[in-house]
Order: sequence, then C-alpha cells, then structure tokens
Amino acid sequence: MAQDQVAESLLQYVKPIIGTQRMGHTYPGATFPFGMVQLSPDTDTLSYETDGKYNPDVYKYCAGYQYDDPTIIGFSHTHLSGTGHSDLGDFLIMPTIGPRQLSPGVAHVAGSGFRSHYQHANEIAEADYYRVRLDDHNILAELTASPRVGMHRYTFPATDSAAIILDLMSGIYNYPDKNVWTYVRIENDTLITGYRQTHGWARTRTLYFAMSFSRPFRDYGCKDFSKKEVYKGFWGKFDQSHQFPELAGKQLRAWFRFAKQDGNTVLIKFALSPVSTEGALKNMRTEIPGWNFDQVRKQGQTEWNNELSRIRIDASTADKENFYTAMYHAFINPTLYMDVDHQYKGLDQGIHTANGFTNYTTFSLWDTYRALHPLFTIIQTSRNADMVQSMLSHYDQSSLHMLPIWSNSANENWCMTGYHAVAVLADAVVKNTRGIDGARALEACITTANRRSYDGIGLYLDKGYIPVDLNGNGVSTTLEYAYDDWAIAQLAQKLHRDDVYQEFLKRSNNYRNVFDKKTRFMHARLSDGSFKGNFDPLSTSNQGFIEGNGWNYSLFVPQDPKSLMELMGGDKAFIHYLDTLFTMQLPDAFFAETEDITRDGIIGGYVHGNEPSHHVAYLYDATSQPWKTQERVRMILKNQYRNTADGLGGNDDCGQMSAWYIFSSLGFYPLAPGSGVYQIGSPSINSADLQLENGKHFRIMVRNQGPKQVYVERMELNGKPLTHYSITHEEIMNGGTLTFYMSAKHPN
Amino acid sequence: MAQDQVAESLLQYVKPIIGTQRMGHTYPGATFPFGMVQLSPDTDTLSYETDGKYNPDVYKYCAGYQYDDPTIIGFSHTHLSGTGHSDLGDFLIMPTIGPRQLSPGVAHVAGSGFRSHYQHANEIAEADYYRVRLDDHNILAELTASPRVGMHRYTFPATDSAAIILDLMSGIYNYPDKNVWTYVRIENDTLITGYRQTHGWARTRTLYFAMSFSRPFRDYGCKDFSKKEVYKGFWGKFDQSHQFPELAGKQLRAWFRFAKQDGNTVLIKFALSPVSTEGALKNMRTEIPGWNFDQVRKQGQTEWNNELSRIRIDASTADKENFYTAMYHAFINPTLYMDVDHQYKGLDQGIHTANGFTNYTTFSLWDTYRALHPLFTIIQTSRNADMVQSMLSHYDQSSLHMLPIWSNSANENWCMTGYHAVAVLADAVVKNTRGIDGARALEACITTANRRSYDGIGLYLDKGYIPVDLNGNGVSTTLEYAYDDWAIAQLAQKLHRDDVYQEFLKRSNNYRNVFDKKTRFMHARLSDGSFKGNFDPLSTSNQGFIEGNGWNYSLFVPQDPKSLMELMGGDKAFIHYLDTLFTMQLPDAFFAETEDITRDGIIGGYVHGNEPSHHVAYLYDATSQPWKTQERVRMILKNQYRNTADGLGGNDDCGQMSAWYIFSSLGFYPLAPGSGVYQIGSPSINSADLQLENGKHFRIMVRNQGPKQVYVERMELNGKPLTHYSITHEEIMNGGTLTFYMSAKHPN
Repeated sequence: MAQDQVAESLLQYVKPIIGTQRMGHTYPGATFPFGMVQLSPDTDTLSYETDGKYNPDVYKYCAGYQYDDPTIIGFSHTHLSGTGHSDLGDFLIMPTIGPRQLSPGVAHVAGSGFRSHYQHANEIAEADYYRVRLDDHNILAELTASPRVGMHRYTFPATDSAAIILDLMSGIYNYPDKNVWTYVRIENDTLITGYRQTHGWARTRTLYFAMSFSRPFRDYGCKDFSKKEVYKGFWGKFDQSHQFPELAGKQLRAWFRFAKQDGNTVLIKFALSPVSTEGALKNMRTEIPGWNFDQVRKQGQTEWNNELSRIRIDASTADKENFYTAMYHAFINPTLYMDVDHQYKGLDQGIHTANGFTNYTTFSLWDTYRALHPLFTIIQTSRNADMVQSMLSHYDQSSLHMLPIWSNSANENWCMTGYHAVAVLADAVVKNTRGIDGARALEACITTANRRSYDGIGLYLDKGYIPVDLNGNGVSTTLEYAYDDWAIAQLAQKLHRDDVYQEFLKRSNNYRNVFDKKTRFMHARLSDGSFKGNFDPLSTSNQGFIEGNGWNYSLFVPQDPKSLMELMGGDKAFIHYLDTLFTMQLPDAFFAETEDITRDGIIGGYVHGNEPSHHVAYLYDATSQPWKTQERVRMILKNQYRNTADGLGGNDDCGQMSAWYIFSSLGFYPLAPGSGVYQIGSPSINSADLQLENGKHFRIMVRNQGPKQVYVERMELNGKPLTHYSITHEEIMNGGTLTFYMSAKHPN
Repeated sequence: MAQDQVAESLLQYVKPIIGTQRMGHTYPGATFPFGMVQLSPDTDTLSYETDGKYNPDVYKYCAGYQYDDPTIIGFSHTHLSGTGHSDLGDFLIMPTIGPRQLSPGVAHVAGSGFRSHYQHANEIAEADYYRVRLDDHNILAELTASPRVGMHRYTFPATDSAAIILDLMSGIYNYPDKNVWTYVRIENDTLITGYRQTHGWARTRTLYFAMSFSRPFRDYGCKDFSKKEVYKGFWGKFDQSHQFPELAGKQLRAWFRFAKQDGNTVLIKFALSPVSTEGALKNMRTEIPGWNFDQVRKQGQTEWNNELSRIRIDASTADKENFYTAMYHAFINPTLYMDVDHQYKGLDQGIHTANGFTNYTTFSLWDTYRALHPLFTIIQTSRNADMVQSMLSHYDQSSLHMLPIWSNSANENWCMTGYHAVAVLADAVVKNTRGIDGARALEACITTANRRSYDGIGLYLDKGYIPVDLNGNGVSTTLEYAYDDWAIAQLAQKLHRDDVYQEFLKRSNNYRNVFDKKTRFMHARLSDGSFKGNFDPLSTSNQGFIEGNGWNYSLFVPQDPKSLMELMGGDKAFIHYLDTLFTMQLPDAFFAETEDITRDGIIGGYVHGNEPSHHVAYLYDATSQPWKTQERVRMILKNQYRNTADGLGGNDDCGQMSAWYIFSSLGFYPLAPGSGVYQIGSPSINSADLQLENGKHFRIMVRNQGPKQVYVERMELNGKPLTHYSITHEEIMNGGTLTFYMSAKHPN
C-alpha cells in the first residue's frame, strides 16, 4: 500500500471545522502536528474595543473564528486550540484589491474595511490546508504550514491593485495596550522582518517574524494607528507612511501592492521565532527553502497522516470523522517552541538552547493532565518525554521554582488551579518513559508542591485544607492538591523514595478534610474548621469550587474511588449519587451564573463540557455496577461529540476533550494518571490498532458491536479472560489484543 | 616615577562638576573612559509630568543633574554628556532609611518622598568617583564604575531600616509612555536582573541589567505605578507587591530592606548589557568579580590617568583644570556598546558580534565630526578606527543603508542635519588610520549621500540646493552637504577614485547656490530659484538655518575659505565681516527665539556655545590678518571655558566643545576635517607633549607665553621655520617639536 494512499485514507476523516461553532473554540486553519504556526482565518477578534473594559463577547473569539460570522478579517499565524481564555492572533495577513483600506471595518457594514464576506460552500478545511474564497475581493486564499512557517497562496483576479495587508495591531482579545510594541523592517522588496510584543494572558511575550513574498511588491507603506505618538524628535524628516523601511510603534498596519501579472498569485512564507528575526529567517530557509505551496501542503499532510496512523480504527464514517478529528485536535498542543537551531526563549526571558530535546509550550495542564498526556504516554511516548523535559526547563527557569501551571510562550499565566504538572511527570515516570530524569522530576514536584505562597498551599499544608474565607476556590483546590499529592507519592514510590512517598500519601488524604459527613458532599470549610453555611451543592457560585459545583466536585477523588465510596455511604449510596447526577434536571438559574459550563455540555447534572467531571463516568467501575460506566460512556460519546461545526459541547481545551473521546471510544480511560492503570469503559469502534513506538501493536477487537450493544459481556486479553475492569499500561505496551464481547443487555 | 604618582598628578585637574550648572549639560558622576555606564546623581528628571506635553524645563535635565538643585532623587546608570536632547537615566538607585517611601516627592516639600537634600560641601566629583552625603537620610553615597558595571557603596547610619530603592520608572525626559516595558526578576536574595525598554530619542531601545548586593536583603517588594493594569488574569493568586520574585509592567519601583549590621554598608554592582541579562551577568563577573570598591575606583582612575596622559601640558592650575576636564569630557563619548563577549544589539535590533573591533554608540556627529574625531585621529587613533568600524556596522544594519546621523543605543535618532559621518570616515582614511577598509567606507559614504528620501537630498541633487519652501533648514543643510561632499571627494581622491572625486567635488560647490550676491549672505532660496524675501541675517527663525542665523552660517564653507572670501568681496570685506561678527551687539529678541544658543555662549554675534561657528575664528588664517585668529581664539578660550560648575558657555555636546578647547589651547585646529591639515591659532599652554600611539611624541613649546602674548610672532617645526599658518597631520604623527614664539603685539 503506497504511503499516499494511506495518507488519503485518514486525512479524509479530519474535519478541522468541528468545534468552530459556539463553544468548541477550535480553529479551522492550517497547522503542522504540534507546530509553532497555527495559520487560520479570524472572523473577528474584538481587537477594536477601546473602553478598557472586559467584553464578555471576547470569549467567543478565543480561537479567532466563529462559524456563524459572515466575514473574515484576515489570516493570523498563532491560535490557541479550544481554550477558554484568549491570546495570540499574531500577524494578521489580508489580501485585498481596490482602493487601499487599512481598517478592518465592521461585519455589518459592507465595504467598511478590508474584511471580506465568505461562504462555507467556498471553504475547505483540512489538516494543514485551508482554503476560502474572499467574496468581497474575489480572491482565493489558501494556507498551509511547516512546523515554524506559514505559507499563503493568494490568487487575485487580473488587477493592478492586488495588495497584501500586514496588520500588527490585530490580535485575539486585544484590549487597549495589549500591544506593548511592534516593529517592522522592510529588508528588501520581498522580505519583511519584525516582531510583536504583547502584554496579555502571556504577560511579557515577544514573537518575531520573517515574511517573504514570492514576487517583489512595487509599492508599500505603513500607518501607525496609535492614538498619540508622544515623541517624534527628528523623525519628522521622513514621511514614514510611504516607502519608509523601518517602523516601530504600538499600532502598525503595513500594506504592499503588487504589479499586475499573468496567473496573478502572490505567495507568502511567514516564519515565526520566539528568539529573533534571524531565528525566523533560519526557520524559513530550513523548512521551506522554495516556493512550492503544494509540496509544503503535501509534506504537512503526509506528516499528519503519519501521526494519525498511530491509531487505525474500524468504525462508521461518522465515528471515524469524530475519532480522527479528535486525534487531530489532540495533536495540535502542546506546541513547538524553539527554532530549528534549538534556541528558544525561556521563562526567565533569556535565550536558551534545548539540548537533546524539543522544547514545547502551551501546556494547559489543568485540562490535559487528565487524558491528553496519558494518551501521549501510549502513542506519543517520546514526544511526551520532550514535553516533560520542557516542563522541567520551565521549572529551572521559574523565578518561583515551580513547574508550569499553564505554560504560555515563555510565560506562566497561572491559569486554573492545582499543580497538575506533577501528575504528568509522575504518570510518565511510573510508566517507564525513557529519557526522563526521575530524581530531577521528583525534586521539581516536591518544590512546586511546597511553594507556600502559591494559591493556598501554605494554608493547605498548615490545615490540611484551604479555608474558603481565605481562598475562594478552597474546596476544589484542596481536592486537586490531594490528587496531585497522590501522584507525587506514586512517583516517589517508583523511585523508592519511601520518605517522600509516605509524606505525600498522607497529604493525598486531605480530600477527607473537606468532606462534610452531614451533607455527604465536599463542602466549603472556614478557617475556624467549621463548614460554611448556605450550602447549595448545585450552585457554582461562592461555594468554594472553580468552574463547578458540589455535585460534580464531590466526586473528585480519582486516586481512591473506593474510599470515596465509603465516605459517601458505600456501594448503594454511591451508585445512587452517580445516577442522580446523570439524570437530574438543572434549574435555569444554574447556567446564568456559571462560567465555562453551558447547556451544550451537560447530561443531567453531569458536566462533560468542562474537565472536572471527565473521570466521573468511570467511577461506576468501583461499584457493583460497572455496566453503568459502559452505558454512560457510550451516551457521552454519542451526545457530546458530533461531526459538525457545532459538534463539541464545550471547549476542546487543547485536546483534553478530544483525548477523552479517543480513550473512551477505544474502551478504556486513565481514571487516575500516575497509577499506570486504565479503567475499562465501553468501546464504540469495531476495532483498533495502536502502533506503539516500541514497534509493538496493541489491538482492540470488539465483537457484537452495535449502537445498543453498549455493555461489555466479557473481555479477553491475548486470548485469556480479563476479569476485572481495568488494564495496565504495561499490558498495553507489551502489545497484543484486547477483545471485547458486547451485549445489548447489562448483567443486573 | 611611579604610576600612582602620575595618576595623582593628572586626576587632580579633572573637575567633572564643570559644566553641570546651566548650559553645559555635563554630569558629575562616575564613568570609565568611553564606558557603557555613566553612574551619576539625578537632581531631577521631570519624570513625573503627566500631561503629555513637552515641558521646556526638561531641557535643563539632559544630563539629569543641575548644580543649583537642592535635592538628589537617586543615582542612575546612563547619562548623555553635554547633549541638547534628552534620553537615558536608566535604573535609578536610591538608598533610604526610615519608613518606606516609593515616590521621589518634590524638591520644595521636605520629606515628600525618597529624594534627599545634599550640599556641595559634602560632594566630591572625580574621574570615575563620586561621593555625596544624603542629608535627609544621613547616608554616605559613593559611586565608581568599570566599563560596563557601576559600583555603589552606601554607608548607612546604625539602623534596621536601611533600604535600597530600584526605580525603573525614573528616566531622563520621561514623558508618559516613554517606558514601553520593564521587567524585574529577583534571582535570589542578592541578585536581581531585568530590563528597561523605552521609546524616546532612541525609538526602540532595551537595556538589560544585573544587580548584585554585597549582602542579602531581608525583605523586598515592588509596586507597579501604572495608571491602569488592564489585564490581570490569574495573577490575582499572588500578592505581587511583597516578596514576589518576578515583575513586569510599565512603571515599577522595587525596594530592598537590609538587616542592621556593624559597619552598616551595602555595596551594589550594577552591570549593563545591550544584549541580555545573561550578558549583563557576564559583564559583571568579568569586570568586577569581587567586592573591593576601592580597587574598582583605583582601576578606573588609573585608566583615566593613562588616557589623560596622552597629552601632558604645562600651564597654570586653572588652565590645567580646564584642559584635563576637557580631556575628560572628550573621552566620555562615543560610548562602549557591546558585552565582554563582543555581542551587541545592532541597528536592525538583532544581536551581532563585533569581530575584531570594539563597538561604540552615542555618535553625536553633527557636533563631533568637527574637532572630537579629528582629535581622536591624533591621540586615540585605534579607538577612532573602532568608531569608524562601528559606523560601518551601523551602515550595514541600517534599513535605509545610511551611515549614522546620531547613533543612539542601536537606534538612529536622526538628530540634526548633514551626513557628517562621511567627514569622520574621510578624515580617518585620509590620515592613514590603520584598520579601516577605505573602499567599504567610500561605498557607505556614496550610498548615504545619495539617499534621496533623506532630509532634502533629492532636492539637493536635483537643484544643487534645498529650497526652504520645501525644507525649513534648506540653507544650512545645503551648506553642510556641500562640506560633507567635499570630504567624500577627499576620501575618493585618497583611494584614487577619480570619478567619485570629480562628482563630489562638483557637489561640494553647491554652497555657492545659496549665496546671495546681492546681500553677500548665505540666504534662503525657494523652489523657483528666487531668494526668499524678508531676509534678516540676525534672525534664527524661518531663515532656512538650523540653530543659527545668516551671520554665522554664511561662513560655513570650511572646505574652501579662499573661495568664500572671494564670494564675500575679497580679503578686506571678509575681514570686515568677521570683525563685525565678533563685535556686534545682539538685540534681546535674538535670544528669545533661538534654540540651543544663550548669552553665555556668545561673543558679539559669534556663537561659541553651539557648533556651527566652531571653525569661524580660524577663518582669519585665510586672510591677510591671521593674527586675528590668534586673538579671537585666545579670547574664546578665556571667555568660554572656566573651571567652575557654570564654566561651559554651551552644551558640551558629547565632547565637541571640549575638543575645541584642547585643540585651540594647543595652538591648532582642524578647520576642515578630511583635509589632513590643521590651522594654526594661538596656544594658551606653556608646553605640551602628545604621546602618539605609534610611539612617537609630538611636543609643543611656547616661548614668551603670557596672557597678553597671544600673537604668534614666528614658529619652528623641528627647528626649522614654519612660515604658513597650518600644519599637517603627517607632520604631527611623525613626532617632533612645534615651537611657538609669542608676542604681545600683532604685526599689522
């Protein structure tokens, strides 16, 4: 079977458009697996708000694109995939014809700016290829990317007014003063370099670029839209707006105009670097030396196909589309963050060299420790080791000596709670991942977990819980720390560090300190030891939980479901609790007050659209009714993932939602990363073949599969009966076959 | 004679306080010869103006210090010496005791901030050593510096409230938003790193630092004084104001508090780098590995003495003070701009390595091409070659492909007119300076001189003059270009490039195109070829001259005084013109409207306090009355230079005023750099010994010297009569003795 045929066969199932409508916060544009460039259309960025206040609508534009929007303002080079916070959107490129327009205009006023209408009928979004017709300009826009270089191909109508706008003002969630500084340098009539420095979610971030045109522009200019240019000095000698080769300021837009030409195309190579314009040039010259757009696309798509081929499934076309789009979304983040010469900017804002590893950023760890990194331990083993190395470098460079909470382009944005990097490290070491210095990892975990000044850790250490009168998320953070501490204990045990094991195992029991035996819920506790009044397990407001409520967070003891079950009253009570959660009717008021949770992502009171409950369906495995795990998982797979633009019920969160899908559709899930064990659910595929980096294959065969055959009657691992509802990482990595025998009936 | 004794003997004549009162714009603080650090007290910076308007008083604070001010706000690490524009003032350090104060307060309200009163009686300013008692805090402050590292020694009273403020807000001419970004990182309890990025005279400039304390602080904090911090995100998890190790923002002030200790001193090493904090650390560890303040001071002062010893003179103590302070001021700029590993930031904002040369910045070329660089060709020959190399690198990195106009920390600030770098290059090559690639220099000169978009060059090339209706400084710029073109012609002739020689020699006659034969003045001309009406040769406003008037600028043909004399009506008329200039009474209105010219710097209508007339006194040498050159020069030496704080009649302009003094007091002056010839004036010293880098000595002996013996009766060069009023560079560099025989009477 020729490679290209293989490529064809999986690429066809990737639909980057999935999740671009409403809550998914994915983008449809072109990116290379784990690439530095995410070259994608922005339909709006709300860059043009000027009152300095938070605009709640900005939330829609975390990825720059909303499927329902009628216009595209341009194509920018960096995007977060699936996040619930905004940043990036660097270096917006827009091709135009006609009179020069340097303002994007507004969507509801035709011709008010350089933005253009477009139609989904004229839009193609593939892995590493995006194409759209810009109706207002009659321009065909095509995008592809190598790891560090975006490539554009614009086919203009026959015109002598073909122009390219390079917009350095634009950016995602561009509140006033987010642009700290920008710089543009016209090196010659085909090459531009510069940088954009921003103060956003990443507090102090600079991204460099080198931009090359396939043919010389015949005219160019730039405008600084800064409200006031205070210091002018002797720059008044020049007309800097026209044919002036070097610009610096906060709000720059440049334009380049091209002569009429047969086959009126302009290609652009746009290289990024976290280090320097020289680094960007190096990246460009190494990755895309020539001007063959189709070849760059082919290389990218071949690479995507190779990555997707790590798991080959048999399933319905719709399921394959869901599955391979999930694989696609899972293989976007973390993102490459170093030049071809291995130089990168570190958290200390200095330039470092990644010796012997590939440096990554965009670690959305509160999300991705749950399933994305565990997935990587199986099918991206060496890349996951590089990610661990990147986290350890982050730790080395951290002024607080902490592992990343949310690593964002040489910045820590401190997003969300817990110190879940420890779970990723523990999981990788426990699973014998090569290339990780376990002792160094353990030291980093211990230091991080003892940073008293960080988010209640001091209180947690002193009291065994975080009082909500001192820290608004005290309950959920206590629960998360307890789990993380258990992960550290696993790591210590693996390294035979019994002292550390005992210490952190003890800490991991702290979840008990926020369990209210009276209400049988995890419950906000005050400094004086008492539980807070006015308890409402449905409410997500002022109850001590971040992005969740008592009903969901009370189940957050993934490290020890049996003990949780005991606390909650034993098997029957626990099943009742879970059943109630999945079947309750939520009042309307719930949605009005709750961040990051919408009706789309809810089943009963179970919230799949956000992460804290991602393990919940698998908790039935600890009870006498594991078939309910099977039933719930299949229901979630069906309800929460669809192969349409609005197919994701919540933010994809840098691949975590997708990783849940991948695991669950294969029939197992990492309930407690760090354990080396996966819980059995219910596979939705017919069969799967996991190609492991050790050369082995782990195969999943599903007998008697069907939409109603959601119950696992029995299982065989390599022909021998598997009698418990779990499988170990070692068993998977040894290769072999797990066979599920399905049934439409559950045992009791 | 022991080295230390020598050091003592010349250092005693250096009085950095000269020029710190009123117009000199020098600073009294510590700097190493041509050093990167200029560590000096700021008495005010007007950093705290917030209305966004230009405050004319800011002009007083170009060097941060005004002698008449009653308070010091702190000690910052970078200062321009003698300029008429403002920038720098980076990283203000202030020691305090008592309750924490994070605002400098205002001078007229005692205790309103951390600033302190001081008295000149408690102030010592030496080359590379500054000391002052801060009365409000009872702290003795001492400063010294190596090339790239400032060292502070603060002796506190017995107190447990000793604190050091690190102010990143403060800066010289700090209009709102000049601070683009600042960053501070507490590496440990003795080491701080960070940077300050500004948008000022240097449009896009970043300076990095590493700051080390001699003993650990026991507490620290930081405050961001930004009006609004728009994006906060998850940083709210921390109290960033206290013991938080990493800060970024626009308006930061940090404080460090020290425990009480015997011999209550805190030393600081404060290293700078144009490249990175890592570079600053490297600079610190290389240049000042230990903590011996006195040794650093001794090394700096020994180096100063070595530099000053390049010319040893015999003269009155007052004259020695003027002379060696002039030498001191001449050896401050240009300033070192590279790390110990030869890395530096280039004009293209990229990091470069200076291979085989030392990179410099702070080229105030409109000033310094006249006498400072010619002085360097004699007594700082190899350093001047490095400066030429630095200018050529600037050219290579320039997006406009131009030699520097005013090189300001990896920026071009375009200050003033002409393209006088060509004169420095031509002068160095014509004088056979080693280590300069003449062909490369010539190419850079030609390209620069043909940059049509720059300041009227296109008009100048098309019309032979710059019409004032299109360019407000058309007359003076035409005159300056004509001289510069002549310098390029000299360079071309030296390289046997006859084509270029002829072309630029022709261009150099363009001064004739702005000479009005009717008025016999250089006179503003319009696009239509006519001379502009309302001509007033006294006025400095709207007459086509920058910082000057018709009376002075009409003499700006240094390259061809004989032809100018012809134009002006011959010997007698020219003498009459010069005599009138030196003896006229200026109306009061003149001073009200004129930038950079004050009464202090005026003799008659001759303006010594600004540069365009610096050659004028030497023009009599072209007439039948060269004795008037001698007379005028001695008068200027006496009137315009005094050994007091108010001793400079105008801005020292990065050493140009001082270089005029050095040359003139030695008895000769480079009328037209590029000629390889110096005009004879009248020496004011008794004797001088110039130690040349080729190992030879050029000695000047003055017989019958005295305050009234200002006329040169005759001269001998190496015992042979010198019968013309000039001497060549070659004659000087060959070594030998020039003997002046003075007289109290002039010949006619």
